[in-house]
Amino acid sequence: MISLRQATAEDAPVLWATTRALAENHGHLADFTATVVDYAAALADPRGLVGGVIATWDGTAAGTAVWHRSFSTFSGREVMYLEDLSVLPEFRRRGIARALMAHVAGIAQQQGMARILWHVMDWNVGGKALYASLGAVEDPDLRVMTLTGAALEALAP
Amino acid sequence: MISLRQATAEDAPVLWATTRALAENHGHLADFTATVVDYAAALADPRGLVGGVIATWDGTAAGTAVWHRSFSTFSGREVMYLEDLSVLPEFRRRGIARALMAHVAGIAQQQGMARILWHVMDWNVGGKALYASLGAVEDPDLRVMTLTGAALEALAP
Repeated sequence: MISLRQATAEDAPVLWATTRALAENHGHLADFTATVVDYAAALADPRGLVGGVIATWDGTAAGTAVWHRSFSTFSGREVMYLEDLSVLPEFRRRGIARALMAHVAGIAQQQGMARILWHVMDWNVGGKALYASLGAVEDPDLRVMTLTGAALEALAP
Repeated sequence: MISLRQATAEDAPVLWATTRALAENHGHLADFTATVVDYAAALADPRGLVGGVIATWDGTAAGTAVWHRSFSTFSGREVMYLEDLSVLPEFRRRGIARALMAHVAGIAQQQGMARILWHVMDWNVGGKALYASLGAVEDPDLRVMTLTGAALEALAP
């Protein structure tokens, strides 16, 4: 009943809606400023920086994944960064997140990317358990830093 | 005495050497499998996924930064991911890391990227203090997960 396919620019509304639901679920709706047009432009970019996957359940969009190319200086190769994995609340507990992860893993392999990395909220016990069941490993040492807004403007020469 | 410039494919040997020194310093030399050719190819890629900055001190390469394009699903825009910031041990405490960060911030602004993000080792107190002095903020909730090797192969359909 699950079907998976690569997203095209025409899927921008679905990707946008599920990712917005994810932001809301994580309490970050105020930070969600993206538009459907932004998503369509990213998916249509000929450089192929961004990719999306749509999971449908009996034909209805139920979840999405968005990934982009990253570069590992240690391996000297592109790696995959999984930006978002979203399953709509009414479609939870049907294996959709796992199916999305498997599909994304297949894309990584096709594209010669030997590693997928992503961020998870430390409090997201359910997500961590799913990822661990797939063989993913949490790095105990890495923390995420950001520079934005006035601080970024002040630092730029 | 510090001079900064954008790296070209010809700078691949310098970028490679300083990043390798960083890997060694962090105890991850066994994971450093990149070659100079990998770096040259990434810097020459017409998609412009990867960029580098070279800091010289009186004409001698003293430090480097490597960044790549990322995509924020929340903002719908490209953001900058700073993959590595390296200063060779003999050039420490001369403001080179700060100068590299400022140069990278300028590139982000020129390219319309409103955010720079990167990873830092939780034990890297000196690095964290520098970043905090620039106005960067550590996200207390985010952790980094990776899927690679046999687990990635097993998951891919």
